[in-house]
Amino acid sequence: MIRVAIIGASGYTGAESIEIILRHSEAELTYLSALPEECGAVEDVFPRFKGRCNLQIEPLDIDKLSGLADVALCCLPHKVSMGFVPELLKVGLKVVDFSADYRIKSTEVYEKFYQVKHTDTANLKRAVYGLPELFREQIKGADLIANPGCYPTGALLATIPLLKEGLVETDSIIVNAVTGITGAGKNPSVKFHFPNMNENIFAYGIGSHRHMPEMEQIAGQVAGAEVQILFQPHAGPFDRGILSTVYCQPQKEVSGEQLTKLYKDFYASESFMQILNNAPTVKDVAGTNYCHIFVTCVKGRIVVFSAIDNLVKGASGQAIQNMNIIFGLEESLGLD
Amino acid sequence: MIRVAIIGASGYTGAESIEIILRHSEAELTYLSALPEECGAVEDVFPRFKGRCNLQIEPLDIDKLSGLADVALCCLPHKVSMGFVPELLKVGLKVVDFSADYRIKSTEVYEKFYQVKHTDTANLKRAVYGLPELFREQIKGADLIANPGCYPTGALLATIPLLKEGLVETDSIIVNAVTGITGAGKNPSVKFHFPNMNENIFAYGIGSHRHMPEMEQIAGQVAGAEVQILFQPHAGPFDRGILSTVYCQPQKEVSGEQLTKLYKDFYASESFMQILNNAPTVKDVAGTNYCHIFVTCVKGRIVVFSAIDNLVKGASGQAIQNMNIIFGLEESLGLD
Amino acid sequence: MIRVAIIGASGYTGAESIEIILRHSEAELTYLSALPEECGAVEDVFPRFKGRCNLQIEPLDIDKLSGLADVALCCLPHKVSMGFVPELLKVGLKVVDFSADYRIKSTEVYEKFYQVKHTDTANLKRAVYGLPELFREQIKGADLIANPGCYPTGALLATIPLLKEGLVETDSIIVNAVTGITGAGKNPSVKFHFPNMNENIFAYGIGSHRHMPEMEQIAGQVAGAEVQILFQPHAGPFDRGILSTVYCQPQKEVSGEQLTKLYKDFYASESFMQILNNAPTVKDVAGTNYCHIFVTCVKGRIVVFSAIDNLVKGASGQAIQNMNIIFGLEESLGLD
Amino acid sequence: MIRVAIIGASGYTGAESIEIILRHSEAELTYLSALPEECGAVEDVFPRFKGRCNLQIEPLDIDKLSGLADVALCCLPHKVSMGFVPELLKVGLKVVDFSADYRIKSTEVYEKFYQVKHTDTANLKRAVYGLPELFREQIKGADLIANPGCYPTGALLATIPLLKEGLVETDSIIVNAVTGITGAGKNPSVKFHFPNMNENIFAYGIGSHRHMPEMEQIAGQVAGAEVQILFQPHAGPFDRGILSTVYCQPQKEVSGEQLTKLYKDFYASESFMQILNNAPTVKDVAGTNYCHIFVTCVKGRIVVFSAIDNLVKGASGQAIQNMNIIFGLEESLGLD
Repeated sequence: MIRVAIIGASGYTGAESIEIILRHSEAELTYLSALPEECGAVEDVFPRFKGRCNLQIEPLDIDKLSGLADVALCCLPHKVSMGFVPELLKVGLKVVDFSADYRIKSTEVYEKFYQVKHTDTANLKRAVYGLPELFREQIKGADLIANPGCYPTGALLATIPLLKEGLVETDSIIVNAVTGITGAGKNPSVKFHFPNMNENIFAYGIGSHRHMPEMEQIAGQVAGAEVQILFQPHAGPFDRGILSTVYCQPQKEVSGEQLTKLYKDFYASESFMQILNNAPTVKDVAGTNYCHIFVTCVKGRIVVFSAIDNLVKGASGQAIQNMNIIFGLEESLGLD
Repeated sequence: MIRVAIIGASGYTGAESIEIILRHSEAELTYLSALPEECGAVEDVFPRFKGRCNLQIEPLDIDKLSGLADVALCCLPHKVSMGFVPELLKVGLKVVDFSADYRIKSTEVYEKFYQVKHTDTANLKRAVYGLPELFREQIKGADLIANPGCYPTGALLATIPLLKEGLVETDSIIVNAVTGITGAGKNPSVKFHFPNMNENIFAYGIGSHRHMPEMEQIAGQVAGAEVQILFQPHAGPFDRGILSTVYCQPQKEVSGEQLTKLYKDFYASESFMQILNNAPTVKDVAGTNYCHIFVTCVKGRIVVFSAIDNLVKGASGQAIQNMNIIFGLEESLGLD
Repeated sequence: MIRVAIIGASGYTGAESIEIILRHSEAELTYLSALPEECGAVEDVFPRFKGRCNLQIEPLDIDKLSGLADVALCCLPHKVSMGFVPELLKVGLKVVDFSADYRIKSTEVYEKFYQVKHTDTANLKRAVYGLPELFREQIKGADLIANPGCYPTGALLATIPLLKEGLVETDSIIVNAVTGITGAGKNPSVKFHFPNMNENIFAYGIGSHRHMPEMEQIAGQVAGAEVQILFQPHAGPFDRGILSTVYCQPQKEVSGEQLTKLYKDFYASESFMQILNNAPTVKDVAGTNYCHIFVTCVKGRIVVFSAIDNLVKGASGQAIQNMNIIFGLEESLGLD
Repeated sequence: MIRVAIIGASGYTGAESIEIILRHSEAELTYLSALPEECGAVEDVFPRFKGRCNLQIEPLDIDKLSGLADVALCCLPHKVSMGFVPELLKVGLKVVDFSADYRIKSTEVYEKFYQVKHTDTANLKRAVYGLPELFREQIKGADLIANPGCYPTGALLATIPLLKEGLVETDSIIVNAVTGITGAGKNPSVKFHFPNMNENIFAYGIGSHRHMPEMEQIAGQVAGAEVQILFQPHAGPFDRGILSTVYCQPQKEVSGEQLTKLYKDFYASESFMQILNNAPTVKDVAGTNYCHIFVTCVKGRIVVFSAIDNLVKGASGQAIQNMNIIFGLEESLGLD
């Protein structure tokens, strides 16, 4: 049994990780930590685990943790994470980090978008971007995984085949996405107060969302050239899911059928990638690690639709998929 | 034109009051105030009023206000209200107070449930409970109205005909109610954070909700005897509305048809009371000042269903209905 | 008092029209009709009007109607409408038609997208497209208004200033829109069954939505050149509202500030058009006839966000705005 | 591996059963059937299973089925089920039946509430009511399980300890319940059309709901006396869950603490029963087979709150719990 610690267990991605590990036949939870004011019995922090998990969430104690776990799922926020990850690595744990701290390879870009100095450039270099569909081989041998952002996961899975084949103008990509509100985290705020968010939808992060450079970095690697992405997120009145509608300009004429075939071939061996013949819905992927995609051509433009669950394929599910790969387990364990 | 000031204009009942006065043909907004940190142009505080209302919400200045308005809708929270109401009355304004401060006639009961000393017992005595269907005559001459709570409005309108006729055992009444989340006010909280409240429903205030003594006081007045009400509120995943399901024990056998006739007769001249032949829905009253009621008999018990909009008939609409009565206007102005 | 008939009163736009006329100080409902199986007292068809409207909805009888009304709001579906409009005009009524039958000037395009022969080309020629912000002068003298589609209203109001000024590449416009489900009409279907639509969002009408040619026709008129619009609608889990996110390529560099000024100037005298300094939300326009717009520049592209209520500015509100113009009334009556 | 057939696989309880069996380590799906017009590849009927289940849903063929499965989960509607269950039993299958056909022991009561003659009284007699917390021993040896209704599950689990201990007046029980809309099944209808149900809540089945006699039968068995239950269901705007608020009259004074202890002791060995110290929420049990209960005393009355997921503990989860018991498997397999 792989022994799993969750650091930052008191938030939504922490809870989702607990949920998945509880169903995992070859991994078990051994240690949970959070900020002191959010500690307590799991069943008190999350009543849904009453009778299902008897652990305590406790303030982080690296010494104690080091003997108890093989891997840490690090569900801490941006900026905080890079303060703890070096210590987790030092005591010999594998780390899957949910924050952006190890995703952006350029510290300059990171520091511009996250407004803080990067304090762990040594580990930044060896971190592997945890999108298994792209980097499975590197993940196998890694001890530090930068688990992708939720929006980049949906956007990249929707565009990688096009970028890899050099089919699109690399400055033409528009990603219009809508997320459910678990994506905003567990802390109450005016925007996401129920009577404000319910029956509502709106754009945010206009021109400045932090997931834009992350998308561009990976897309550029795939394309072997600079890629410009206009990414526009929206918040919608539902709990889970990201629907990405991607528009781009093909370099030459291509039909919807050709595109569908390209995607089916490209993802043929990927168990979590499903290419549909019509529009995906977020409800059909909610609670699963799957990504549903439909690709077509409208008025000379390629339009791709992708749907994922932001908490699963966009966070905890993908983290555990990465964990499974690192430890040589069947990739879908806990994620069926 | 009646000149209307709104004190505490930055909350949900303030916004709803603005909305209604904007549609009122014989009243106009002249003054809006709120806590300093919530002041600003109405269109900045509530973008929905952009182009519709050019007023500023400003810190309360009684001197300024006194020359500008005939009536104040006082949308302040419990405990705060009784600090300002005496001043508003002193400068000659009529006051419709939304808080509980002038509803409970017994200071002992008030102080037990609201955990604060009552500081304005003089005005408490003359305040009229603003349920027009019961106290229209007293409201006409009043200068201080205690606007009823949202739950008491729904529960009392559902039971008054029974109490007045002495049809039910006065210790048998159970009020099971579900409210939309605007009822919880505008301040973000963990319980009402969208991903926590969405797809959810739960009971709260078990055995201790502050609206219980208010219901019992008025019900007792109507019945001419002590009335015991077991009131159990729930929060449901919608914006507006309270659905009350009331169970009580008849003193003698009575049929659904007899009850329907009783209610239709009782409320025959009440324009906002509608007796239905089947279950009311909160959606049918949302955005209106109407109360929909269905009454029947099941297995020897009387069951009454009432639906109101908590922000309209349960707050701002009823306040303006009261205002209309005070000033001798047609009662439904602004509320059609 | 303008006497108003509503043809097709039993659907969502019919109900919304009733709601607005009930609040209108210079218009009154005099006649309501629907298919025989949907007739009955208004309060039985729509319990929300109980006590508020005592009319019957009855099978259409043009003779009876002709003496009772000055104007007909024709809320019939596409294809059906053009069977009745000629008769309504013949008896001397002004007609505001909600269907697409009189919007598309090219019968060829109409017949391709609606798959039916146009049977009233005579009236088609004289129908005025009822977007007051563009065609107010023509609307004044018209007796037949083709009330715009909900999506075209949101998309056109968002782009007209750009098109008029020749600021954008006319083949570069992408309209990504999300509608609330009242936009799908009142008839139950699998897609919009509550447990299927709740907690969901998805694209539909991919490459083929009927509102695309309508947008292109009017946009082309404004631009004085052919305009190509890639329109992609989505359905979201809320009742009311359309949020349009429009992407286009400027012909020359332009800043967000310049664009904001352009829009503010362009719509300066339009009471229902509000240019914001940040992203609009559908909730802020719900239940109103307002259109909220934010325009900016991201990575060299112009991005415009517009929000309307699909049932009000996108249907019944705009129809009554048109009615007000035709009859020389203040344009905002009933719509405040 | 237990081989599982699902009869009536195309509805919500069918899909939920598929979901659970896919996660079950000692059971596998081998046969799925539905009405001819609802057949097809599982991934076409339910896109959420694309890549997860490669079976076809096919028209029922008992001969084919008989060699393929050990147990049939029979998700057919009331009245239909008793036409197929005898055949399933005849070919040697264990049957867990989701309909009401084998729940009501009195054919007289059944025929009154379901308005149809019972056609399989032979099997009715031997059917075991599948509430494991009450009838685990009988379930072990059974070949036909009448899986409880969703409402009765929530109501009975909330009251059994009281009834068993003879603590309450048996004619005093009121069950006020709210269900999510998956409880209404997959067929579109006016009431549950998204724009009608969203932002709404209402009572239905007033005085006549079919789950009332089912509750009374089992409650009577537990109490050893006739029990009268006033059951009032409501429909609320969420997908999953039933919140039952139960009011009853104690026979003698009892405190909330005593009641909590009673419930904790009573359910001490039941893994799916969790007694809380405050109000349960439907969200905390959504997607799980757990029942959360809080019991207290208010104004001399016992009030019990129970929350379950209507599709899991209220249907498919409980069915698979029963299946696990029949086959001697660990009771929680597939349900963790």
